[in-house]
Order: sequence, then structure tokens, then C-alpha cells
Amino acid sequence: MSEGTISRRALLVGLGVAGGAGAMYAAMGALGLAPDRHTDDYAPPQRSDFALKGRAAAKVVILGAGVAGLATAYELGKAGYDCTVLEARDRVGGRNFTIRGGDRVPELDGETQEARFGDGVYFNAGPGRIAQWMVTLDYCRELGIPVEVFVNDNPNAYLFNRGMTTPVRFRQARADTYGYVSELLAKATNAGALDRTVTRSDREVLLDFLSAFGALGDDDVYRASERRGYQTNPGVDAGTLLGPVPSFSETLRYGLGRTVAFPFGYEQAMPMFQPVGGMDAIVNKLADAVGSDRIQVSTRVTKITNLPDGVEVVHSGGSIKADYCVAALPPHILARIPGNLSPQVVGALQSPKPLSAGKIGLEYRRRWWETDDRIFGGITETNLDITHIWYPSYGFNGTRGLVVGYYNLAAAADSYAAMKHVDRRSRAIEQGVHIHGDKYRTELLNSVSIAWRRQPHIEGAWVEWPSYGAAFKLLQEPAGRVYFAGDWLTHLIAWQAGAFDSARKVVTQLHQRVLKEG
Amino acid sequence: MSEGTISRRALLVGLGVAGGAGAMYAAMGALGLAPDRHTDDYAPPQRSDFALKGRAAAKVVILGAGVAGLATAYELGKAGYDCTVLEARDRVGGRNFTIRGGDRVPELDGETQEARFGDGVYFNAGPGRIAQWMVTLDYCRELGIPVEVFVNDNPNAYLFNRGMTTPVRFRQARADTYGYVSELLAKATNAGALDRTVTRSDREVLLDFLSAFGALGDDDVYRASERRGYQTNPGVDAGTLLGPVPSFSETLRYGLGRTVAFPFGYEQAMPMFQPVGGMDAIVNKLADAVGSDRIQVSTRVTKITNLPDGVEVVHSGGSIKADYCVAALPPHILARIPGNLSPQVVGALQSPKPLSAGKIGLEYRRRWWETDDRIFGGITETNLDITHIWYPSYGFNGTRGLVVGYYNLAAAADSYAAMKHVDRRSRAIEQGVHIHGDKYRTELLNSVSIAWRRQPHIEGAWVEWPSYGAAFKLLQEPAGRVYFAGDWLTHLIAWQAGAFDSARKVVTQLHQRVLKEG
Repeated sequence: MSEGTISRRALLVGLGVAGGAGAMYAAMGALGLAPDRHTDDYAPPQRSDFALKGRAAAKVVILGAGVAGLATAYELGKAGYDCTVLEARDRVGGRNFTIRGGDRVPELDGETQEARFGDGVYFNAGPGRIAQWMVTLDYCRELGIPVEVFVNDNPNAYLFNRGMTTPVRFRQARADTYGYVSELLAKATNAGALDRTVTRSDREVLLDFLSAFGALGDDDVYRASERRGYQTNPGVDAGTLLGPVPSFSETLRYGLGRTVAFPFGYEQAMPMFQPVGGMDAIVNKLADAVGSDRIQVSTRVTKITNLPDGVEVVHSGGSIKADYCVAALPPHILARIPGNLSPQVVGALQSPKPLSAGKIGLEYRRRWWETDDRIFGGITETNLDITHIWYPSYGFNGTRGLVVGYYNLAAAADSYAAMKHVDRRSRAIEQGVHIHGDKYRTELLNSVSIAWRRQPHIEGAWVEWPSYGAAFKLLQEPAGRVYFAGDWLTHLIAWQAGAFDSARKVVTQLHQRVLKEG
Repeated sequence: MSEGTISRRALLVGLGVAGGAGAMYAAMGALGLAPDRHTDDYAPPQRSDFALKGRAAAKVVILGAGVAGLATAYELGKAGYDCTVLEARDRVGGRNFTIRGGDRVPELDGETQEARFGDGVYFNAGPGRIAQWMVTLDYCRELGIPVEVFVNDNPNAYLFNRGMTTPVRFRQARADTYGYVSELLAKATNAGALDRTVTRSDREVLLDFLSAFGALGDDDVYRASERRGYQTNPGVDAGTLLGPVPSFSETLRYGLGRTVAFPFGYEQAMPMFQPVGGMDAIVNKLADAVGSDRIQVSTRVTKITNLPDGVEVVHSGGSIKADYCVAALPPHILARIPGNLSPQVVGALQSPKPLSAGKIGLEYRRRWWETDDRIFGGITETNLDITHIWYPSYGFNGTRGLVVGYYNLAAAADSYAAMKHVDRRSRAIEQGVHIHGDKYRTELLNSVSIAWRRQPHIEGAWVEWPSYGAAFKLLQEPAGRVYFAGDWLTHLIAWQAGAFDSARKVVTQLHQRVLKEG
């Protein structure tokens, strides 16, 4: 049955009978509850901007072909700027890195892995998801990149904490937790504990909410319901509920706070999205639009010099002079490049600290998480050092599939980074077997791991600023003719949207300067 | 930033330090918390089944080419049964009805609409979503039907109750509701109201959970957070939070109980799925597998007679004799067909009551809900008579798109059903304008509505049994050589999975009888 029933109390509330709702809602509108609109006042530079000003598009050298660098070249290109993008790696994209069969993944001071994934299987080793409010989705639309839903949260996925003998479905943990929280608050309300803070009529509405929220019985007691799931699914027969429910004390030991709140976040709420066929569609389409003749890969920058009338960039293949430079490299890499940036600027670049993150892509010969576990996308949460297991949001019901066997940060990521790939794989499998059993080992075909601190010319997953203070503000302005761009210069660190937003800001600044100064 | 921080208390709990978690988890496993497996003991009939028994596949006439009828023919066909499917409508599928440009939609005692939707635009007028545990997904895999995520829940969608001057994002309503519920329970806990029911150490863990769940401050007070959303999104700048929060009393007036609990249900939990390109891929692929030569559309059954050695079915194009009959029609239709079914069986068929549901598909020239409102799929909940607005889960970021302007039940559905289409459209638009403003009217291109009680040969959205009692049980067994199948004979009424499960059950019963009796 598709619909729940509505209680009389809820209906009264809904109809606005209870307490002059009309006037109250009007007040709420005035308080700023009106729907937030996507306000975006970015205006891309256009060729026609120059007509009235008697100026011309300038020559710009862009350091780094990650999302920020490519977006800068793409946006400046709309107004005819003469852009050159220098990229130290042998491919565009930076951390937007999708690994497919045949790709080679070298590491600093380490081995080079070669991916052996089958056709159509890919591993988004960097960013993997896009929130619906993020500008990244607008670029997908503008660039003609089809998107599909990324499943960021799935009640059929598991919760597994060290000490458990068997994993628990997230739906069970959630139903039990919400049930007991509702029961406790209902009891406190009925016992008069809220009488001084909540009005009598509000207490009635609260009890009605708690009953629905916790699936409480008429006696306000929590018991097993269909929300926990079934031992045998309903069909011709009614099915058998999973039960009995654990005690409140046991339920607290799920430790659900962090897990349950994760998808409430503005950045992580479902539905999220991914480009069809791999995240690198974004950087590949940007690069196509910029033009391959304007992008020099395998070109390492060795010196950046502000000149009175321009910028000179020396690189592994020669040097280039331009009117302006946009440095879209990680700050810790940029800080190491010689030149004449002031000590204050270099100090600011040294301020944000690179952080560690790692992932492993595990390709399986069959999609046992779908056929055996009925998990179609989503994330299993653990407090093991693998932290998360991601099930793929593409290729549903297909043959092969790729699971992300860990996505971990900080010390856990460092501990995997210190190993050879074969040992990372063994350790990841060993942890996953606790949750999924032997098939997690026996059905494995291929694997590739990434340790972002060990990726050449990147050396970090993202950065953390000690504060959004003076150093952050200093780098929002150009140092002479050198501008800085990247997610690290925004409040959307670790998101491609940050890179896009930063690029737009720099493009606007630079274009306004050119229109004014030439 | 991708990850929240973990409190020390949560870590201790997670590590199993608090309270001997190891032994406790072991107990939970014993209590039935082990992950439920998808147990499905259905074994399709096979040609080889007959070899040992000296029997042969029988001739079966199947009444109705909805999901149950087609699935019956498909499964019996695996063992070589000689099946004929009679369908009164001019197309297969029954309530699995996807409407595209050029399709005609006649109504009983009413007008015939013709859909004028553009290429690639479709309207699932019947079932629209599949839960990941349902057998329907297995049929998609078996039949090679690609599936994609159906967005059943979106915090960026709106909540709109009569009396509101402006809609509220579901994320705001949820953050406020969870925030205050957490604050109240934390206050009650700190005030000692739970001292007799909750141990001291559990109280600490509970407070930690509430802090994470409600996004409370260190003082256990709820204030605006990023979970409510932003007036201006974060980017280069930190963004501006939506605020201030309404009072607890105002928050209760969201009336969130039913809405917030909707996706907790086992049947409605995200992620859900849909076939790529329209739900009718399921019935079309089933029909292809059965063979078009075995399906007679526009063929109305007029008499069903059990004979000593078979069944005779008279229809609008002649008559057919078979060894067995599977009647996969709605029970209220079946009860009206003359023949020699016993009064007891006919009475049982009359027992479930058909229910009303209606939908309208509104095609827009641009996807304003995505570009202007940043809603990519999902459902806006209202207590207006439109009940829901569904945003499409396909064609993201495209040009045109189709919104379901109402999906309502019972009296609300009946009131729309009583109108001509043009009036249904006007009324739906009038309601939607309250939520989305004038664009809801001005951007409209085309529309089609469906009133399931007025669909020829169906006459209902689904049925409701007074109880799962004697009548339900009676029809699980054949009446002579006539078997009954359909979602109405299951505990999954209104779901295609019910039709599939019922078909499997009847196929198994019939096949076992043939193996025994011939």
C-alpha cells in the first residue's frame, strides 16, 4: 500500500485548525523560511565585453589542469582569452581521476599499479558524488554530460562495529534508535517532565509526531515493525518481521549518531549525482572545450616570475610569457616552486595542510551485494580502518561490478598508504570478510588502490586551513599578475564545486582587471 | 569536507570499550539481528520436470495480460506449457501503463485523451517505483531491462500545508523537528526525568546521540545549522545560513510525522528503482518472451466454465478450451463474468473493494524545478487535494520534463475523476501555483490524467480486503480448474511484486498438479 494513514490530530494541524496556522505561517515566511533560491550572479566573460572598453583579451598561462585550472581556461575562453594550461601529470583532471582497465597508477617513491578492470567498469578514485545544489551540476548541463543518481545512503546497507559478530542492516539500527528515542520522549511528556516548557496542546501534537516517527504502539511503546525489515519478505504470505528488538541499552551501542546524521548534511543529502560513465567526463569535456592544443601535459613548472608587464613561467619543456598567470595547483606544491612570489605569499601557501585519504577499487566477477544482500548502491559504515564500503551506483543488475573497499582518512589512510598495493588489498579484504563473508575474497577479480598523499604532483586528498583568516584572504587577491584558484581557496574544500566557484571568482577578477587596465 | 568528526564518547562506544560490547553484540546476533537474506525458494517449472513423471505440459488459458497474467504465461512457458493470454484492453500491461506521445487514453463513460508529449517524455500512470528487495528487480535482471534510481525522497523538495503563504523545504522542516525533539529529550535527561528508566552510562551515550542527531550546541540547545540549508550557498565565501529557526510550537505545525516517516517504510525506502525509459519495459519484455502469437488483445471474456476435464472460456472473439485457466483479472471484474464458479467463490471475489487513485502528467517546456528550485527528483508533500507532486527521476538536466501534478487517493481522487481532463488540469495547476508560482502554469506544454476507477476493464487502482480472512484464503486455492492470480491475492497489494509473487505461487501449484494428475 502506497500511503500511510493520517491521524485526526495531524489532519487538524495540517488544515490549520490548531492555533491559527495561517497567521503563524505568514510569520514563518517573514522569518526567512521562504524557499532559498539558487542565486548565482556569475556572468561569464564575453567577447562583446571588450567592444566598449577598447581592450582586448589577454594571454593567460594556467598552472594545473585540474578542475579549477580547466574551468578557468574554459571560462576565459568564452571571451577569447589566449590560454595555455600546463599540467605536470600525463593526463588532465588532477584529483578528478577515473581509473579504467589499462590505466597506470604510479605512486611517489613506490610501485606503479596497472588496472585490469573489465569493459565498462570504472573506479572514481577522486570525487565520486555531486550534491544537487552544487554548481558542478550546472557545468554538467552546460557541457552536455548526462548525470545519474549516486546512492549515498541505503538502509539495506550494513552497520558493523568492532566487536559485532554479525553486521546489522542500517534500517534495523535506525528503526530501533528512533523507536526508543520516541518512546523515551513520549514517556517524559506523559510523566509531566515537559509541562513547564511545552504547552498542553503542543504536547498532544508532539505525541502524535513521536508515534509516527518512532512507529510506537497506542501505548507509546516501541516494538518491532516493518521498518526494521523482514526475516521472510511479505508476498502471498504476510512475511515474518525481524525481531525481537534489542533493549534500549543495546540499541545505544549501535553508536548511530554520526551515521544517522551523515545524510542530513547539506553536502551529503540524497539524492546525489554522478556523470554517467565516470566522473572524468567533467574534466574530459572541459578539456575538449578548451582545446587540446592549449593544454600541455607532462609539463612541470619550475619557476614563476612576476614581471612588470607580465609573468614568465619556466617549465620542463621550456618557458612561456603571458600577461597573467592563474596558479591552480595544490598550495603545498605551489609553495615549493621557485620564483619571486613574496615570502608573505609563500607563507600563506604553506599555511593549509594537506590531508590523507585513500580508496581501493575491488572488481568482482558477480554483483553479490545485489543478488545476495539486496544492496543496490549506498554505503556500509564501519569503525574498522576501512571506514566505508561503497556499493556501485551504476551497472545495477549487471554481471561484474566494482565496490570501493575502503574510503578512509587521516591515520587509517596513512596506514594503508604505507603498504604495497597487494598488502592494502589483503587488509581491505580481511576487514570486508567480517561483514560479507568469504565471497568478499573468493569473488574478487581485480583491484587498484590510491593513496592521495602519494600521488605525484598532488600529494594530498585536500587541505585543511588552520583558520579562514589572513592567509586565506591574502590568496584571494592576485600576487602581482599571479592569481590563485582551487577548492582550497573556498568553503567547499574537497568538492569540485569549490574548484568551479574559485575559478569563476578568479576569472571575474582577472577579466575586470583586463577591461580596466588591458 | 566529506566527513564529520567523531566524538570521544562515540569512539569509545564504537570501540566496544563501553560496557562489554563484544558479548552484547553476540547476544544481538542470537536475537535475530543477523542480516536478513533474500530467501526465495521459487523454482521455475522446467521441461525436464516431466521426464521422470511421464506427464506433459498442459494447455492453459490465462485471463488478463497485466503483470500477473504475463508472468504466469512467462513462467509456465519455461516448461513448455501451451499458454494463451486473453486481454480485454488493446494493449498488454494492465495497470503497468506508460503513456507517451500519440497514446490514447479512453475512460469509462467519458472522453478519450490523446497524449501529445515530446520524444523521450513518458508518464508512468500506474506503478512508478520498485523497492530493492522486491522480486520485480529480479525480473528486470532476468529480462535484461536496465534500471535506474527512482528518487522517492528529496530534502530539497517542499512541504506545503494549507495556510502556508510559502512552501518550506523539507530539509528545514526536518532539521527543526529533529533539533527540537533532541533538545527536549536532552533537557528531560539532564533534568533527571529518565533517571529511573535509563542508566547513568546510557544517559551519556543518549546525550551524545541526541547532540549528533539534532545538531545541538554544546549547551544542548538547537539553533540554525547547515542542515537547514543556506540563503546563499557556500563557495568562495562561507555562505549565509537560512534562519532564524521557528519556535518549537511553530515547528510542530509542519505536521511532519507522516512525511518524515514515509521513507522509513520497508516498501518506500530509498533507493528505489525504475526501468530506464518507462515502467512498461517490464510488461513489454514479458510479452516478447511469451510471444505475441500467444496473446490476444481486445478480447473480452464473457463466460468461464469449469468442465470435468478442462475449462471453457468464451470471449468476444470466440471461445477456447484448455486444461486449466488462470484468472488474473481484478476481482471485481472477475466477479461479474458469468459461468459456473460457485456462489462462495463469487462472493469471495466480491469481498475486496476497489480503491481510487489518480495521477496527472504535466509536461513542461523547461525543467524549472531543477534550474530554479534545485530539485532533482523526489516528492513535494502537501495536504492540498493534489497530495503529492513528483519530480521526474529521468532526463536530469535535459530540456523538457514531466512532473506528476497529483497522485491522490480515495475522495481526492474521486473528485478529480468526476471532472473532464481540462478541469482536472486547471485544478491541479491552481494548487501547484501555490507552491511553485506562475511558471507552474506558464511553462506547461501538455498533460494527460488518469482516474483508475474509470479505466476500462480495470476499474480501480488496487483493492482493499476487509480482512485477510476466509475469502482471501479461499481464492488462494483453485476453483476446480480455475486459478486466481494478482497483487490482490498477496500482502503486497498495489505493487507489481505482489503480482509476480502471486503468479509464481499459482504456477507452482498448477505445475505440481499437472505433474501429479496430468
